[in-house]
Amino acid sequence: MTGSKRAESADLAVPARGLSRRGLLGLAGASVAGIGMGVAGDRAALAASATPEMASGSAEYPFYGRHQAGIVTPAQDRLHFAAFDVSAGTTRAELIELLQDWTIAAASMSAGRDVGEYGAVSGPYDSPPEDTGEAQGLPTAGLTITFGFGPTLFETADGVDRFGLVRRRPAELTSLPHFPGDDLDVGRSDGDLCIQACSNDPQVAVHAIRNLSRIAFGRAALRWSQLGFGRTSSTSTSQATPRNLFGFKDGTANIKAEEPDVVTAQVWVSAADGPAWLAGGSYLVARRIRMTIETWDRSILSEQEAVFGRTKGAGAPLSGGTEFSEPDFALAGRADQPLIGAAAHVRLAHPAQNNGTKLLRRGYNFVDGNDELGRLEAGLFFISFQRSPAQFAAVQLNLAKHDALNEYIRHVGSALFAVPAGTPEGSYVGAPLFA
Amino acid sequence: MTGSKRAESADLAVPARGLSRRGLLGLAGASVAGIGMGVAGDRAALAASATPEMASGSAEYPFYGRHQAGIVTPAQDRLHFAAFDVSAGTTRAELIELLQDWTIAAASMSAGRDVGEYGAVSGPYDSPPEDTGEAQGLPTAGLTITFGFGPTLFETADGVDRFGLVRRRPAELTSLPHFPGDDLDVGRSDGDLCIQACSNDPQVAVHAIRNLSRIAFGRAALRWSQLGFGRTSSTSTSQATPRNLFGFKDGTANIKAEEPDVVTAQVWVSAADGPAWLAGGSYLVARRIRMTIETWDRSILSEQEAVFGRTKGAGAPLSGGTEFSEPDFALAGRADQPLIGAAAHVRLAHPAQNNGTKLLRRGYNFVDGNDELGRLEAGLFFISFQRSPAQFAAVQLNLAKHDALNEYIRHVGSALFAVPAGTPEGSYVGAPLFA
Repeated sequence: MTGSKRAESADLAVPARGLSRRGLLGLAGASVAGIGMGVAGDRAALAASATPEMASGSAEYPFYGRHQAGIVTPAQDRLHFAAFDVSAGTTRAELIELLQDWTIAAASMSAGRDVGEYGAVSGPYDSPPEDTGEAQGLPTAGLTITFGFGPTLFETADGVDRFGLVRRRPAELTSLPHFPGDDLDVGRSDGDLCIQACSNDPQVAVHAIRNLSRIAFGRAALRWSQLGFGRTSSTSTSQATPRNLFGFKDGTANIKAEEPDVVTAQVWVSAADGPAWLAGGSYLVARRIRMTIETWDRSILSEQEAVFGRTKGAGAPLSGGTEFSEPDFALAGRADQPLIGAAAHVRLAHPAQNNGTKLLRRGYNFVDGNDELGRLEAGLFFISFQRSPAQFAAVQLNLAKHDALNEYIRHVGSALFAVPAGTPEGSYVGAPLFA
Repeated sequence: MTGSKRAESADLAVPARGLSRRGLLGLAGASVAGIGMGVAGDRAALAASATPEMASGSAEYPFYGRHQAGIVTPAQDRLHFAAFDVSAGTTRAELIELLQDWTIAAASMSAGRDVGEYGAVSGPYDSPPEDTGEAQGLPTAGLTITFGFGPTLFETADGVDRFGLVRRRPAELTSLPHFPGDDLDVGRSDGDLCIQACSNDPQVAVHAIRNLSRIAFGRAALRWSQLGFGRTSSTSTSQATPRNLFGFKDGTANIKAEEPDVVTAQVWVSAADGPAWLAGGSYLVARRIRMTIETWDRSILSEQEAVFGRTKGAGAPLSGGTEFSEPDFALAGRADQPLIGAAAHVRLAHPAQNNGTKLLRRGYNFVDGNDELGRLEAGLFFISFQRSPAQFAAVQLNLAKHDALNEYIRHVGSALFAVPAGTPEGSYVGAPLFA
């Protein structure tokens, strides 16, 4: 986020209007009419002093477009995810204004610019800076910011249609079913709105969520949030398959951006699916999955491989071949038992066992300190995008009932959001919902 | 951590002995005599498939040496820090064996190798893998692992000298004094032992702490732990100054590795300082400092700059110049008031105000979700290394009493550890303590 960058892009088309007055109040009353004391030269100098180590991840993805960024975008390395509740008393008009403010700020940060007209380090000295500043001097590092709407946004409260959206609710946007073994913490579940910020630099992702939370002040408040330090899925054939905290490659058979037909069939809501306002969007499922890694670490290698149905090293199916070989679920080994067992994760999650259903997975490893028994509070923050929540529900029901992995995991958080299509320049995220 | 790497270094000098039998029990009874089924070719293939994005951070620092790595080593980007309590019933001999096991594992991981003889993905299929595997295919990314001993290791329990170390305790290794405003959580403070794992890849740092915790099973258990996503200090002139979550450059005047005289005077315990076993070592102070960022974000820019005594953009002292200009604490501005106020952080922390005392700072930004009020649980995990804890205590007392920053921060965790000198090959960390 650099001064020079901002100067270079000054003539690009950006929305003419700035943050709403309410948004500026979120920034604690920053007076746009205050005495500007720009230090742009300063900021250019900052950028020049970044070391090569800090300059990694120069990828940049435009915020505006047909679909929201952060879905088929090659999965970045780090995550900050946040769910918000719209504050009591907030009106429909104020909700719209919040989405407008978020759009302007998200577009700005995605382009490597600060939030606001004056940004972090220049501008009225008698006002709080518009941007919090910790991303100064850092490259954009592939930042994407993806917004979603939770089921509760479309509900009534005390008999009143909260935002006049009850009749616009997608039929499928309800709470996810309760799956066997679910052990959900309500404080880590659900939410009216969500924001997924992904970047190759965690400080850039944190900066995005922090500034968007700040802009929401008085209108929406953080309900829960999650940092992820390591991606567990590839969403592009250009990426190596990463490993989860069980030490296994994860997401080998994930949907890849390079398969546009599969993406269309499995990820994007079509106009025919309805509702019309969600066409070109998707559904986001988030699940906080706690791994009991100490127990896992004591299981023998053959058990671990049997649980996944893949080798731990190369990630090849136990039926043979290499990582990307198609598993042969019929191939039998000793005593005529299939080499990939009936309860193996790869079998149960495979499209062949789920009527051809695939999910676009985009999860992250997390460690949130340790519990009082000294066990690492670790696991997988699972995120998937799909055309219909039913896709996730079908696969998850299959897994929750039969997956050998269940001995080592516990689903402790859950949320579902409708992710609107991308935003055309000059509009705001989710505008068709309010049209 | 790659197969090819391991093959290349097979003829390097590494300790002949492997993990202790107890250490292998920590690895859940991995049978070294089991049926080895190596898949080394597999692992080489893995390494070859790493993308450039995953191959960043190829720096490697040797574990063995005169001083422990991770102190004057150029501060890596990510941290996983862990404090342990030695389990009740653990004997002195078992403590020594734990340190020996930790040494072997730390040296192996620092060199980009797996833990154990067979590692993560090969070897006895009827045993748990010796290494948990999530760092497979990742470069070492500058991993350093630094060990420390807490005051409680040198105490009696129920009237018994826990490990026969009471008489070897450094006179200065006591609890830190209580500072004004301290609001310490005992569950985030202290510990018998600590491990600081730093790397440019968070998954590599997490992998280190996880595997060392696992090796400690039955002998020591995690007491508390902390992930940090962004370094807040430079420890080398080759590094750009990073920013803390207040948006300010932090650690501009930090001790740099390129100042060997300062390092000798301020960081390393000398033989004359005593005790002899700690010569060449240091003292590590860890403080979890919660930032009330929402309040900070509402303060005006001139207030923010006055609090730090520096500009937010360039980080120059308010007395003028550039980031690395020496502050002029006498220079007066309006109404003959000093441009850098009496309560400014840069003034109170400056060596000139602390009898020339400097600390080698090596802290990290953290965000651990949010609290129930929707405020980000964010702050600075402060780490400093110094020749004497009195250096930290003097500076911190000065800050705790007068620092304008106190309005926006709260110290919620605290720990002090004696960090022994580096380990010669063939020995183990802290061996002179037990000699």
